[in-house]
Amino acid sequence: MRKVLITTVPFADKDRYPLDLLEKNNIEYVINPLNRKLKEEELAEMVLDFDVIIAGTENISEKVMNNARKLKHISRVGIGLDSVDLITARNKGIQVSYTPDAPAPAVSELTIGIMLSLLRSTNIANTRMHNKKWERFFGRRISEITIGIIGTGRIGLNVIRQLQSFNPKQILVNDINSSIRYQENLNIKHVNKQFLYQNADVISLHVPLTPDTKNMITDSELRSMKEDAIIINTSRGGIINESDLSTVLKQGHLSAAAIDVFQDEPYYGDLTEIENCFLTSHMGSMSIDCRTRMEIEATEEAVRFITGKPLEGLVPNEEFEAQSQGL
Amino acid sequence: MRKVLITTVPFADKDRYPLDLLEKNNIEYVINPLNRKLKEEELAEMVLDFDVIIAGTENISEKVMNNARKLKHISRVGIGLDSVDLITARNKGIQVSYTPDAPAPAVSELTIGIMLSLLRSTNIANTRMHNKKWERFFGRRISEITIGIIGTGRIGLNVIRQLQSFNPKQILVNDINSSIRYQENLNIKHVNKQFLYQNADVISLHVPLTPDTKNMITDSELRSMKEDAIIINTSRGGIINESDLSTVLKQGHLSAAAIDVFQDEPYYGDLTEIENCFLTSHMGSMSIDCRTRMEIEATEEAVRFITGKPLEGLVPNEEFEAQSQGL
Repeated sequence: MRKVLITTVPFADKDRYPLDLLEKNNIEYVINPLNRKLKEEELAEMVLDFDVIIAGTENISEKVMNNARKLKHISRVGIGLDSVDLITARNKGIQVSYTPDAPAPAVSELTIGIMLSLLRSTNIANTRMHNKKWERFFGRRISEITIGIIGTGRIGLNVIRQLQSFNPKQILVNDINSSIRYQENLNIKHVNKQFLYQNADVISLHVPLTPDTKNMITDSELRSMKEDAIIINTSRGGIINESDLSTVLKQGHLSAAAIDVFQDEPYYGDLTEIENCFLTSHMGSMSIDCRTRMEIEATEEAVRFITGKPLEGLVPNEEFEAQSQGL
Repeated sequence: MRKVLITTVPFADKDRYPLDLLEKNNIEYVINPLNRKLKEEELAEMVLDFDVIIAGTENISEKVMNNARKLKHISRVGIGLDSVDLITARNKGIQVSYTPDAPAPAVSELTIGIMLSLLRSTNIANTRMHNKKWERFFGRRISEITIGIIGTGRIGLNVIRQLQSFNPKQILVNDINSSIRYQENLNIKHVNKQFLYQNADVISLHVPLTPDTKNMITDSELRSMKEDAIIINTSRGGIINESDLSTVLKQGHLSAAAIDVFQDEPYYGDLTEIENCFLTSHMGSMSIDCRTRMEIEATEEAVRFITGKPLEGLVPNEEFEAQSQGL
């Protein structure tokens, strides 16, 4: 009997259908018993005799795969592939699939909500009101500011689309893929990163974590931003250097930041001490509908693999190439 | 020389133009020296020899007007008239003007931001992360839910418009004015309040405070809402009974509430103890651009009055009628 290890948690918490699907197909499964993101060593110990991993963002390294004698399929719940050593997987004949479309609407809606909060300091007012301090903060509206979007894949494009009903004054975009996939009439301008850092009032990141984007934003990039700029990262931890962000915010540069994703999760670091740093716990994709869709799609893919049907969400070749070229 | 009392604070904090305008016209002015919302008695003592009040939301009652021997014009910075005794003003020949259009875009954008936060519990995640607790919350997207809007004036209509880019499943609206001023194709349905309370996942209030809307939502209305409903009030304090809301939330009914406006401001009451009650400090209109526009419009109106020009923002007759009929 084939065995599936489900590492991502929570799983099937709001909708039992993915587990029903496994059971209906007589597939044995184990859900991560530690109920938190697994460390590399923990996963390496746990993975020994599983055929398939239904995976979150834990590190599926060469070491993990060396321990997983039977592993033939990694089915990622989500879009990011920075956690999977794709080259080793290919060399070992382990197939890798993902669910790239499912999380986008949830991540982009979370991003817009956080952006509107930071522009009006409602997060700070809320904290202070709960400490019985009444202070009224001035804010800015989206129609008054320039928004910078780095990364115009599924999520970045959705953010740009949803911003339209607030009539943004200007949207600056930057993407390694310079082919313009958005409408020209939306007051959108393609610029280099330096120009975007210097001119945007709000900067939001929607890029994957790659060797090229790791530490993309450190001390010097943060200091090149406007004094009252806002930076939002709902993409991947490690793209903004957390320690540099903490230093810069403490020194009063930038009006606010929002971080949903961290280099090491769960996160308990320095940023938790900074009032104008809005923190959430990797909740971008955590809307019930999107999370359910991701889990169902990843489970269906595992069932397809085990029942000998062709996979529908195989990671495209360009992802392997990008990782092998260290991009 | 004519004298203007500016009671609303902060005033001309981000843009000095309103004060320049008064000075250019040789108009003497005093800005509320207590730097907070004035109580009725304080205003009654302060108002003695002023010709014009550029007013916030403080109570301009018969008692206040009886003390204001020279008062001939009340220029409200904003839209609500619940704080002004319109009938006494008319009887005493005091003109009343307001700036009804200026605050709408700021209030509606704040409302949407708070709605997106509550739907994803990002406010709670933020509070807990700052207390070094990592917990991931599931949430809902606007496309999955039914939104109830009570009041479809300038602000309510703007909220409905801005929600469109998130593809709401259904919008239920209720308004005393049943003439449908919105587009039929937006998945909008006009319903009575009871139906709206029972069927909406998010309920947002955009009505003025009148004898008819005071305590519109008390214990029984709150309990008729869905167990996981969200209620948002960015209109006026007193429309939701604060003590009832506090009791109901503490008993675990409703998934969250957001309150920006309170019966007595500044507010330090029971709701500050409730984690899933998002609190802001009457910040709806506090975007720099809208606030500046409100202050300029109200000051221009005071200058017009003093220089003998016709007023442009006179409160329409229907507002006097509504107040005299106790509506």
